[in-house]
Amino acid sequence: MKYAIGVDFGTLSGRALLVEVETGREIATAARNYTHAVMDEYMPDGVTKLPPDWALQHPEDYLEVMRETVPSVLAQSGVSPDDVIGISIDFTACTLLPILADGTPLCFLDEYKNEPHAYVKLWKHHAAQKYADKINDLAVKEDMARLQRYGGKVSSEWLFAKAWQMLDEAPEVYARADKLIEAGDWIVMQLTGLERRSACAAGYKAMWHKADGYPTDEFLKKLDPRLEHIVDEKLSREIYPLGGKAGDMNEAGAALCGLNAGTAVGISVIDAHVAAPAAAVCKPGRMLMIMGTSTCHMLLGEEESVVPGMCGVVEDGIIGGYYGYEAGQSCVGDHFDWFVKNLVPEHYHLEAQKRGISIHKLLREKVAAQKPGESGVLALDWWNGNRSILVDAELSGLFIGMTLTTKPEELYRALIEATAYGTRVIIDAFEENGVPIGELIAAGGIADKDEMMMQIYADVTNREIRLCGSSQACALGSAMFGAVAAGKERGGYDSVAEAAEHMASLKDLVYRPNPENHAVYNELFKEYVKLHDYFGKGENDVMKRLRAIKLKARS
Amino acid sequence: MKYAIGVDFGTLSGRALLVEVETGREIATAARNYTHAVMDEYMPDGVTKLPPDWALQHPEDYLEVMRETVPSVLAQSGVSPDDVIGISIDFTACTLLPILADGTPLCFLDEYKNEPHAYVKLWKHHAAQKYADKINDLAVKEDMARLQRYGGKVSSEWLFAKAWQMLDEAPEVYARADKLIEAGDWIVMQLTGLERRSACAAGYKAMWHKADGYPTDEFLKKLDPRLEHIVDEKLSREIYPLGGKAGDMNEAGAALCGLNAGTAVGISVIDAHVAAPAAAVCKPGRMLMIMGTSTCHMLLGEEESVVPGMCGVVEDGIIGGYYGYEAGQSCVGDHFDWFVKNLVPEHYHLEAQKRGISIHKLLREKVAAQKPGESGVLALDWWNGNRSILVDAELSGLFIGMTLTTKPEELYRALIEATAYGTRVIIDAFEENGVPIGELIAAGGIADKDEMMMQIYADVTNREIRLCGSSQACALGSAMFGAVAAGKERGGYDSVAEAAEHMASLKDLVYRPNPENHAVYNELFKEYVKLHDYFGKGENDVMKRLRAIKLKARS
Repeated sequence: MKYAIGVDFGTLSGRALLVEVETGREIATAARNYTHAVMDEYMPDGVTKLPPDWALQHPEDYLEVMRETVPSVLAQSGVSPDDVIGISIDFTACTLLPILADGTPLCFLDEYKNEPHAYVKLWKHHAAQKYADKINDLAVKEDMARLQRYGGKVSSEWLFAKAWQMLDEAPEVYARADKLIEAGDWIVMQLTGLERRSACAAGYKAMWHKADGYPTDEFLKKLDPRLEHIVDEKLSREIYPLGGKAGDMNEAGAALCGLNAGTAVGISVIDAHVAAPAAAVCKPGRMLMIMGTSTCHMLLGEEESVVPGMCGVVEDGIIGGYYGYEAGQSCVGDHFDWFVKNLVPEHYHLEAQKRGISIHKLLREKVAAQKPGESGVLALDWWNGNRSILVDAELSGLFIGMTLTTKPEELYRALIEATAYGTRVIIDAFEENGVPIGELIAAGGIADKDEMMMQIYADVTNREIRLCGSSQACALGSAMFGAVAAGKERGGYDSVAEAAEHMASLKDLVYRPNPENHAVYNELFKEYVKLHDYFGKGENDVMKRLRAIKLKARS
Repeated sequence: MKYAIGVDFGTLSGRALLVEVETGREIATAARNYTHAVMDEYMPDGVTKLPPDWALQHPEDYLEVMRETVPSVLAQSGVSPDDVIGISIDFTACTLLPILADGTPLCFLDEYKNEPHAYVKLWKHHAAQKYADKINDLAVKEDMARLQRYGGKVSSEWLFAKAWQMLDEAPEVYARADKLIEAGDWIVMQLTGLERRSACAAGYKAMWHKADGYPTDEFLKKLDPRLEHIVDEKLSREIYPLGGKAGDMNEAGAALCGLNAGTAVGISVIDAHVAAPAAAVCKPGRMLMIMGTSTCHMLLGEEESVVPGMCGVVEDGIIGGYYGYEAGQSCVGDHFDWFVKNLVPEHYHLEAQKRGISIHKLLREKVAAQKPGESGVLALDWWNGNRSILVDAELSGLFIGMTLTTKPEELYRALIEATAYGTRVIIDAFEENGVPIGELIAAGGIADKDEMMMQIYADVTNREIRLCGSSQACALGSAMFGAVAAGKERGGYDSVAEAAEHMASLKDLVYRPNPENHAVYNELFKEYVKLHDYFGKGENDVMKRLRAIKLKARS
């Protein structure tokens, strides 16, 4: 029997999964929280304060994940490293770090251990907004064609904004860095000694395109003369397609994680994207929703269509041979956490206690007891802005329709429904722009746990929803890429599609839309769209003005 | 020393106040809750269910108030009935009951004790909406001039809607009633044996006008042929101005309340309106706000101006010689109760417990710590519809501007501020239509207790706010009317203005607008008005559509 290992690097922890290549059966898993978690207030010394909107990580934490979780799944399963044919990893992105030519992170050097710019800038580091704004301004001014591939706007989370911030705020750190590299590619470098940059991260987070490459030096020079040669100086023009082998594991990699030298190592993939093949999303027409604190949507197309407001379309960016489309909702589960933390009254807690159930269970019962439309309350799900289709971080939340008899659970349900309407807006945008969506596949914590919410999504979107067979879709996807990196010759597969046929599965459960509920939700969705457009498309920018008043009042 | 007694009949209780006529000094007070409170679910038998939106009272409860509270203030103070020169009462309105010619309420008859229509229809009985709608339709169709005196719309709470409902649903009860009478006028009848209908209730609640009288028989006939002679058959064309004497107390009245026969009894006044002279609002330019669960605004004008959306303007309706204007906000304190009941999280209760303070105090501390604009959250204060200026019970609430860091106390403050913006909209409407407002006087529970809120009102409206000297403004106002009913000859006064000079007072405390805060609130008010007009004036009737969807879902 042959095995592959996937390692999934999330925002707060990393997880390894050992999988049987022939069947996709999950044999053993191990996770490790990052020691430094997300550093968004203090530097690792616990004393030096970081400015607002920063979010750093410590690369040592990633090595710990490799060092602990891979040996753990081997030990748990009793599988010999001889039978592990491949390994691949997925990582959050753009999660960027400055390194020396040999791969050493600058923050490992004593001289830089107190320098914030020497650490990993996590995907949700939002302090580079002004650089993103300038990139967008110039791109619009120059009518840069590639901007359309990103829904018309680049994000402050992406590579050039983060790199430019470092260059501008800490030019000496920037100068000292031989490379700026995605953390996912950096792990691959730790395992193989090779710099093998992934087409996935480059495509979705650095405006790279299979045919056109990166933005031109000329464009970069116009942003800042010091950026003119950033691609050749700090990045690389060699970009590797997904499903490829980055290389064989070297001795250092083997020592790090306890596998054999020579084990095939895959090209890294962005964490969300890697879930697609694990959820059998290997051909056009199916949209994958990875639903957690936020939701990421992925689907495949035969052509490169312009979909205003999507996050990006990258050729071969998810599955080779297709255009991979990405969209997202920046706040899904986070809405519910906010609500439970802030607005659940004491007597609900007492009721839950009395009945011996959790407050979540109680709330869910109360939410489930409502019929669609019954509360009269509607929400706009923008507590953390809108990623797609409006691409506007300055939008904020809305509740409408409350009366003196409105109950907390009615606001709660309105939030759930609003996220479903948000999904429907995204689906409609794709379909209206030539990317059809037939079926929805869901993965992630919410999809696995929240039947009521999944039914609401089915009712709102009027589509069947199936669930990914694995509750660890990312790690499974990475294991599949590991099996493909090994290739058929070594007992793996020659393509991701082939791997998916054997290793991916969907649950039998199907959420089917209820026509009666859908009819009510259609009415409510019309109202949602009207408010969405009124507040989101410039007719009344009250949310931005309230934000400006707030910032002024707090300054 | 001479004394007067005021008796204030509220929604849930009645209160007597014994006052020194010369100084307005409050000597003794006594209150009594109504035994049957508000019957909005069951008939007095506690078994027979009432339909939705009904709100009844039992007239026996009013007699109990007279029977207990007046003797109580005499006993407490040791004042002899010989020294009580006058008594007057104020009552909620339109609070309507069917009686026999001798004043016996129909519900006192055995045959009618299970008949809902035989009881008192309380002001907030809302089951006559369809009759109000028909009255409005016809009034608009006929271009009825008097409609303008009521802001363009009559309410389901008013006399003709309630009377018509009775006629339509229980014609035999209607036929048996010799009179339909306001509860305030009924109490006067109990004390004097005389039917002395008040110009205040007739003017504000029955479309009566000093010059034009009631709506014409022709108009009433068009509504329903059976209504053609309602004024002559069930009401009366003799309407008595405020400040007049209804008559001397008769033996039955004296037996009821323990005063001497012959004591002067005033014409009854609506409870809100009677507070005006007690708060020294005796001339144009001052607006009185009676702030509690809802807010009632009263002010005087030299002319009859048309102010769209006001509740009503009645000549001599508040103080003789002036036009009395009324406006209102249907939900003020009720917003805060709703919030505290539904949306205050458990850990706030624990914090309050730990610190040994009430949850209200804790919340208020947290609200008070915020600067204007700092939360970024704005609300529309329509949880119970909008009484003025939009006159639309189908509007509902709105919160906008929430993010994942929004705290409960920020929503709470937004609600307080929204009610202040609502007040400013009313002030602006009066001023734009030729009724100037210089200073604000506040009375009622909120005004007395909530310094923070009063300061916010001063900051939002950019006006000084003073408080009524009495915390029982209504009962004091009634006592003043009692002193005027007695007249100077008996040791009272010859006019309400004269009585106010001696008996009314304002507190020394003045809330003065803070210019910095006002500047921020001006910005926020612009946003409020934009949303107010968008959702309230037909551009987006989403609130009504959500309501319709809700009613359908619940049906």
